[in-house]
Amino acid sequence: MSGWPRPGTVYLVGAGPGDPDLITVKGLRCLEAADVVIHDRLVAPELVARARPSAVRVNAGKRPGGPSMPQEEIHRVMVAAARSGAVVVRLHGGDPFVFGRGGEEMVALASTGIPVEVVPGVSSAHAVPACAGIPLTHRGLARSFAVLTARTCQEGSLQAQVAALGRPDTLVALMAVGVLEALEEALLESSWTGGTPIALVERGTTPEQRVVVTRLEGMARVAEAAGIRSPATVVVGDVVALRAAIHTARSPP
Amino acid sequence: MSGWPRPGTVYLVGAGPGDPDLITVKGLRCLEAADVVIHDRLVAPELVARARPSAVRVNAGKRPGGPSMPQEEIHRVMVAAARSGAVVVRLHGGDPFVFGRGGEEMVALASTGIPVEVVPGVSSAHAVPACAGIPLTHRGLARSFAVLTARTCQEGSLQAQVAALGRPDTLVALMAVGVLEALEEALLESSWTGGTPIALVERGTTPEQRVVVTRLEGMARVAEAAGIRSPATVVVGDVVALRAAIHTARSPP
Repeated sequence: MSGWPRPGTVYLVGAGPGDPDLITVKGLRCLEAADVVIHDRLVAPELVARARPSAVRVNAGKRPGGPSMPQEEIHRVMVAAARSGAVVVRLHGGDPFVFGRGGEEMVALASTGIPVEVVPGVSSAHAVPACAGIPLTHRGLARSFAVLTARTCQEGSLQAQVAALGRPDTLVALMAVGVLEALEEALLESSWTGGTPIALVERGTTPEQRVVVTRLEGMARVAEAAGIRSPATVVVGDVVALRAAIHTARSPP
Repeated sequence: MSGWPRPGTVYLVGAGPGDPDLITVKGLRCLEAADVVIHDRLVAPELVARARPSAVRVNAGKRPGGPSMPQEEIHRVMVAAARSGAVVVRLHGGDPFVFGRGGEEMVALASTGIPVEVVPGVSSAHAVPACAGIPLTHRGLARSFAVLTARTCQEGSLQAQVAALGRPDTLVALMAVGVLEALEEALLESSWTGGTPIALVERGTTPEQRVVVTRLEGMARVAEAAGIRSPATVVVGDVVALRAAIHTARSPP
């Protein structure tokens, strides 16, 4: 890895699920060498602070309903910075290629001939449940899982999407806080029973993590009563019941 | 994090998908402080070497069809080491809770009262496709994905499992090399068409990575002709077509 990371190259780096120490060794090395860092709003400030003092930092926004940089503007900034010979890091929350628009960025950069490399990150899809004591798979309970995001869904299409996913052993819904009622309805109309165990995990993997365990029928009401806020992850399936056995064992963070 | 990692505690650490630099910062810190390391066979030797020279290293095996330590023996070693006051790291390939039996280990440890913490890792399920230039989700192409392992499946149950997963936008099958014919048949009998783009990724994220792109119908024959060997990941869906646009842009590893 001598001469790495390379000037004039864009690195699409996954920052991981929240805990700043869950970035990869490779991702941190890119970040610490970066001349320009373009980061999502949800990336931990402790991570953005790991870039050199002289590095240019750009907050791309990307929160549901909030202001954010248009995707084309992100592409434009990355291209201009790379052409000037900078080491460019595009720092995504979670993994760049799991609901992160990293694919779009890679295609856009490819068309300009600028070298680009993806550095995968720990995805919230499995790490947030894990740190709440819930494995996505478990011998005898679950040997498949599916993941969807409700972020950009209209209610009608959320229903179609849930129906298309059939009946995986475990289902994870990211960014679903705004559409919990529609998600509950869609799951009940698909192949899930009202008694299916559900976990709602707010600010997963961070010291502010909150977990509410309930059942599918009524989950939107329970979430509202508990004041669950974005970003939150919904875990659906029998594996949620393992949390009771596992939770007691966790050493404090 | 002072006094961390703690003696007498077991850390279930994800080593990531193959590239040793894709372990997390937190995982590496555990590993470098460990007195006892129990690792899967597929974990990179460079990572195991990062433990202190005095650390006890135990290879737990865990390869398909090969000899491996019985799960109960792994539990027994972890419990004995933790009770002696050691910092114990159980190093899983990928993520401990995604087809890793980390859940079983956590439940077993919980019942003994030994403190245990999970340190999530980058899962092969999304990182192997990413490093082959294939995002699991992509605006306008895919906004959901499902993951299964064929490792312990009989042919009949593989078919049931594929059918239960319905029609996610993208499907990832891990450890499927031994059952590619059955997988092809199951996918064709489920909701997938013969022309669906397929990628077979051998030794993903490592310098020895090989990628074969084909279509669903005939994939088992193509894989055999190409000599694809375990461990390999199968990616199913339209996102595979993005590799052509993305691949040309990748800077060499």
